[in-house]
Amino acid sequence: MEKLKLKSIYSEFRTDLEFIERELNRSVHSASPMLEDACLALIGSGGKRIRPVFTLLASKFGDYNPSVTAKAAVPLELIHMASLVHDDVIDDADLRRGERTVKSIHGNRAAMYVGDFLLGRSLEIIGELDSQEVHRVLSRTMIEICVGEIIQIEDKFAAEQNLRDYLRRIKRKTALLISSSCELGGLVAGADPATVRKLKRFGYYVGMSFQITDDLLDFTGTEKQLGKPAGGDLLAGNITLPAIYGLRDPELRPYLLDALGGGLDKAGVAKLLGLMRNSEAIRESVRISDLYLEKALREAEALPDIPDRDSLIRIAKFIGKRKF
Amino acid sequence: MEKLKLKSIYSEFRTDLEFIERELNRSVHSASPMLEDACLALIGSGGKRIRPVFTLLASKFGDYNPSVTAKAAVPLELIHMASLVHDDVIDDADLRRGERTVKSIHGNRAAMYVGDFLLGRSLEIIGELDSQEVHRVLSRTMIEICVGEIIQIEDKFAAEQNLRDYLRRIKRKTALLISSSCELGGLVAGADPATVRKLKRFGYYVGMSFQITDDLLDFTGTEKQLGKPAGGDLLAGNITLPAIYGLRDPELRPYLLDALGGGLDKAGVAKLLGLMRNSEAIRESVRISDLYLEKALREAEALPDIPDRDSLIRIAKFIGKRKF
Repeated sequence: MEKLKLKSIYSEFRTDLEFIERELNRSVHSASPMLEDACLALIGSGGKRIRPVFTLLASKFGDYNPSVTAKAAVPLELIHMASLVHDDVIDDADLRRGERTVKSIHGNRAAMYVGDFLLGRSLEIIGELDSQEVHRVLSRTMIEICVGEIIQIEDKFAAEQNLRDYLRRIKRKTALLISSSCELGGLVAGADPATVRKLKRFGYYVGMSFQITDDLLDFTGTEKQLGKPAGGDLLAGNITLPAIYGLRDPELRPYLLDALGGGLDKAGVAKLLGLMRNSEAIRESVRISDLYLEKALREAEALPDIPDRDSLIRIAKFIGKRKF
Repeated sequence: MEKLKLKSIYSEFRTDLEFIERELNRSVHSASPMLEDACLALIGSGGKRIRPVFTLLASKFGDYNPSVTAKAAVPLELIHMASLVHDDVIDDADLRRGERTVKSIHGNRAAMYVGDFLLGRSLEIIGELDSQEVHRVLSRTMIEICVGEIIQIEDKFAAEQNLRDYLRRIKRKTALLISSSCELGGLVAGADPATVRKLKRFGYYVGMSFQITDDLLDFTGTEKQLGKPAGGDLLAGNITLPAIYGLRDPELRPYLLDALGGGLDKAGVAKLLGLMRNSEAIRESVRISDLYLEKALREAEALPDIPDRDSLIRIAKFIGKRKF
């Protein structure tokens, strides 16, 4: 039902997206059949394609040329995919979105180099655009994502962190790549600088709302919706916004500390999730996500009034409120 | 003794190398102290700096400018370091060159992102040079290294491979990065195209000789020289040139097959190494390495006659004959 809704928003620019999808497939062509197969399977396993969609729509605010836009959209999606493959190596994950991971099929060593290969290809493709600015944005994004991942490790299991620590982390982890998707879409299409800046900010705010919603779903989603048991982030030591607010609640705090300390059994986790779902911690987190969403919508409304602006707005609303 | 010899060759351009070393340290500056510390420790643990030295000397064949050369040398060394860090994650290695690895100090997840960060930084720095050609060479090199690693996995434990499989693999794994170090050194200094092509070929041949020597040392080196037990590559399933020739020898073949099948105990490995050391397989491998070295020297001798040409030649001779 939710996925259908996203599909119907996407249908307006289906042809353009299909072109990017073909370019994505073409981008992983390689002398090694194992490498190419692994990449094609990764691409085929889907995902919401949020980043390419934003790059595509952002390009419409300039002189839209599908093959130029693809040269920005494809590298961004490849970076995203590389980070997923590398995460699966570390997390020793055998399944992602219900499909077997590269790691589980080809082993850790192959998955490591599949990830590195995707990063390399992404920088090769962006290099075909003769723009230092575009190059700079992409390599910066890649770096900041890594810094974000390292900070996330440093902050793990640290119960006494504040809202700012969390926001700084999700900015690097998620919002930046979405922000860069919007910025680069505008840049490569030659949109005017003021529009590019608005697109960049729009992407940043959407990305923040997107990640907070993701973190909320870890507490409020069902195993069926999530494709994995709820509460997994918390048990892995990732202290997200609902947990930060929850730790301030005298009723929730002991449960959360136990969960972080590894001392909560399955029944305890179920009890914690039940308490969380009806808590102020969740309501307050939703409020923060909504604030970012509103900021995103305000940026979008300041963009030139073209039909694609409405698509941007509809997608932003959708991903801020989604259930998967 | 051997290390001292290398140091004395390097002393001729020590000031330039120290500048690159400082730029290398500066390149890993980051908002995360853990990330920066891990990178600085990596840089500090040394290595022969073969690649930066070649980039530096190659630059002397054009208009040499230290800070421009560093923008090529640093990214190449960062790519090399990234591949070492990622190898340590996969090999679960706690020590490299006698020092604790990033993985062993900060864990696998951090090591993964330290590697990705180094790749990102390398592409950011090369992007500061406004040359699509330079950018293309670097991203291509990065990709081919990954393809090489994947092919190495595909070829693992495959006893019936031939010389061409091996050469193709070490080209991607080692020779290409050394070749690119020479090529980019010439390119960024604006050396003429014919000279750049010679430098590139010189690096390729040196790289091939370098890797064959490395693979020989796995059979002929002592644990003290290698910093790890001899025969390790073979036991890990990496079939190198001496092994390919050894498999054609009726006396050595059963030992090698047993080693690859995991059915050789410590005494068996010692016996195999003893037989190998005096075998035609080793002599023939040395011959191939020497052929590449000769080709490298021929390219070098065709380069413009400047003092740095002699340094190139001396280093090439050294690394083709080294004992560590």
